[in-house]
Amino acid sequence: DYSKLDKLIIGVCGGDGIGPMITGMAQHALEVLLADKVRAGKVEFRVIDGLTIERRAELGCAIPPDVMEELKKCHVILKGPTTTPRKGDPWPNVESANVAMRKGLDLFANVRPVKVPELGIDWTFYRENTEGGYAVGSQGVQIDDDLFIDFTVATSQGCERIARLAFDYARKTGKNRVSCVTKANIIKTTDGKFLDTCQKVAKEYPEVQFDDWYIDIMTAKLLDDKRRRDFKVVVLPNLYGDIITDEAAEIQGGVGTAGSANIGKRYAMFEAIHGSAPRMVQEGRAKYADPSSVLRAAVMLLEHIGEIELAKKLDRALDICMVEEHKVVVTGRDTGATAQEFTDYVLDTIAKL
Amino acid sequence: DYSKLDKLIIGVCGGDGIGPMITGMAQHALEVLLADKVRAGKVEFRVIDGLTIERRAELGCAIPPDVMEELKKCHVILKGPTTTPRKGDPWPNVESANVAMRKGLDLFANVRPVKVPELGIDWTFYRENTEGGYAVGSQGVQIDDDLFIDFTVATSQGCERIARLAFDYARKTGKNRVSCVTKANIIKTTDGKFLDTCQKVAKEYPEVQFDDWYIDIMTAKLLDDKRRRDFKVVVLPNLYGDIITDEAAEIQGGVGTAGSANIGKRYAMFEAIHGSAPRMVQEGRAKYADPSSVLRAAVMLLEHIGEIELAKKLDRALDICMVEEHKVVVTGRDTGATAQEFTDYVLDTIAKL
Ligand SMILES: CC(C)[C@H](C(=O)O)[C@@H](O)C(=O)O
Ligand SMILES: CC(C)[C@H](C(=O)O)[C@@H](O)C(=O)O
Repeated sequence: DYSKLDKLIIGVCGGDGIGPMITGMAQHALEVLLADKVRAGKVEFRVIDGLTIERRAELGCAIPPDVMEELKKCHVILKGPTTTPRKGDPWPNVESANVAMRKGLDLFANVRPVKVPELGIDWTFYRENTEGGYAVGSQGVQIDDDLFIDFTVATSQGCERIARLAFDYARKTGKNRVSCVTKANIIKTTDGKFLDTCQKVAKEYPEVQFDDWYIDIMTAKLLDDKRRRDFKVVVLPNLYGDIITDEAAEIQGGVGTAGSANIGKRYAMFEAIHGSAPRMVQEGRAKYADPSSVLRAAVMLLEHIGEIELAKKLDRALDICMVEEHKVVVTGRDTGATAQEFTDYVLDTIAKL
Repeated sequence: DYSKLDKLIIGVCGGDGIGPMITGMAQHALEVLLADKVRAGKVEFRVIDGLTIERRAELGCAIPPDVMEELKKCHVILKGPTTTPRKGDPWPNVESANVAMRKGLDLFANVRPVKVPELGIDWTFYRENTEGGYAVGSQGVQIDDDLFIDFTVATSQGCERIARLAFDYARKTGKNRVSCVTKANIIKTTDGKFLDTCQKVAKEYPEVQFDDWYIDIMTAKLLDDKRRRDFKVVVLPNLYGDIITDEAAEIQGGVGTAGSANIGKRYAMFEAIHGSAPRMVQEGRAKYADPSSVLRAAVMLLEHIGEIELAKKLDRALDICMVEEHKVVVTGRDTGATAQEFTDYVLDTIAKL
C-alpha cells in the first residue's frame, strides 16, 4: 500500500532510441497530474541514466550494476524501450534488458490490457514474466555440430502466483472469466503444469468461469468477431503472452498503442510494448515518435499507486486523442505533430474533462 | 517423380469425428477428377481404417503398427483430423497421431498456403514439421515438486532442409521473397540456429529477397494491411508455424478453410488443419461438416502428384463456391446444406469451368 509511504519514488529509465524522449513525455504528464504531491514532497521522480545499449555492450551486461542499484531504491519504475542486440548488430550479445529487469526485480506478472470498445473487446492479459523460454540460465546447449537444445522452465510457485493474480483480478473487477492459453497437448510438462495449476486455482474461485485454449487456435479466436468478446482475463506462459499480446495490441491499433505493467511483490515497472525505433533516431525523426504506448503505461502506473481518478482521466484523454477525428495529432509522421504536441494535447484534454 | 510409377497409391485415412465423412468427400472428388487414371489402373485409392482415438487409446500408441505399415505402402496420403487426447478426456495420454505421422514418415515440411485475393494476400508458410518442441522424446522432465522442464530441439540438417525447400519454392514460383520467423533474441540456441541457417542458405539464392522477424511482432504484421502484402514465403520453426498458420487461416476465413501439405523425401500427407469436431458428431450434425479444408488439402495433393491442371480447377471451383454469393451452400450449419451437397456443388462447378 503506497499511501503509507512517506515518499513514493518513481524511477524513470529512458532506455534507448526514442525511449528517453517518449518516457520524458510520460514523466512530464505524470508530474503535471501529480503536481500537488510532488510539491508536498510525497512523490519524487528520479531519472536513472545509463541503461543504454552502448553502456550495456561496453560492460557486457544486461543491466549495469549501478543502474540496478538505483532501480532497487525506487518503488515503481517507468521504463522506455531498450534495444535488444540481434545478430548482425555492432554490440556483443548481451541479454535483453527487459528480461533482465523482469527477472532481477522478480516482476512475475506482465499485465497488458487491450480495449477496443467499438468491437466489444476488453481483454486483460496476465503473462507469466520470468519463466518459460525466458528463465534464468536457459541459454540452451549445443550438443555437437548437428544438435541444438533449448530449455523451457516452469515452477509450481511460478505458475501458481500468476494464476492467482489473474483470478484475483477477474473476481475483483467482476469480469469473472479467466481463459488459460497453453500448448499443453505438445509442450506437456511445463505447459501441462501451467494448465494444471490454473485448473486447480480455478476451483478456489467458483464465481469465476474458467476455460482453456491452445495457443494456435487462440490466435485465430482473437480475430473471430463472434467469439472474441467472450474473453476477459487471459492467463498464459511467458512466450505465448509475448506472442499473443502483440497480436491483440495490433487489433487495438498497433503495438505503439498498448502499455504494459510488470508487477512483482516488491517492485513494479511500467513500459511501452514497442521497440526503441533506432531508425527514427538515425533519421532525425525521434521527436515525432508516438508517446501513446508509454502514456498508457503511465495510466497503469497511476492505477497501481492508487491514483485511480487520475488514471481514469489520463486514460480517457488518451482515448479521446487517439480516435479518428483527432488523428491529426496522433500520427505525427503524417502531419508533423510531435510527441510534445501530442502530450500537450492530452494534458489540455484532461484539463477540459 | 510420380509419373514414372506403374501405379500411384493414394492412402485415405479418415481419422476421428467428422474426419471419415469429410475425407470421404475429398476422396470422392479426387476419384471423379482422376477417373481416367483410376480406370486405367494408374491410380488406386486405398482406405486405411483403424486410426481412431478408441483404437489408439486401447493399444496405447499414437499410430497402431498395422496402420503405420499400410501408410508406408502408399505414395501419398489424404488424412482427416485425428483427436489429440487432452486432460480430462476419457483416453490415456497417447501422443498426437498428427505429430507421430509427421515424425514416423519424416514429413519435415508442413506447407500451408493462405490466399485472400481481395486483400492482396498470397502467403505460403513453410513450417518445420518434426523438431522444436515437437521432437521425438522431448517429453520433458519433472525435477522435483517445484521444477518442470521441457526441451526444444533443432538440428543443422533439420533447419537446412526446410530452409532450402522454402527458398526453392520462392525461386521456382518467382515469389522471390522469404521471411524467416523466430524468437532468436530469447530462444537463442535453437531459434538462433534456425535463423543462422536461413541466413546462410539465403546467400545461395541471391535472386530471392530475405528478411527476418520475431514471432511476436509477426503476429501483429499479419494484421497490418500496409505491410502484410509484402510477405510471400514464410519459413519458421514448428511451434511458431503452428501458431501463425492458424492466425493466417483465420484471416482467410477460418481454420476450416485451409489445407496443409506434409512433405518428406519419400512420403507426403495432406490434411485439413482443423480438428475432428467430436461435438458435431455427438449432436448428429456430422453430415453438415464443412469439407473445404480437406478439399483444399486435395488441391495440394493434386499439385504434388503433378496434376497441375486438375489442382487449379478444384482450387478455382472452391474459390467460387466459397465466396459470399455462394455462402448458401458453404456454411451448412446455417442453411442446411450438407458436406455431400457442397462437394457435389464443387464438382458441378468444375464441370462448368
Ligand atoms: C524485447 C523482448 C525481449 C520482449 C519479450 O520478448 O518479452 C518484448 O517482445 C516484450 O514483449 O516485452
Ligand atoms: C493437433 C496438433 C498436435 C497439431 C499441431 O500442433 O501441430 C495441429 O495444431 C496442427 O497444426 O496440425
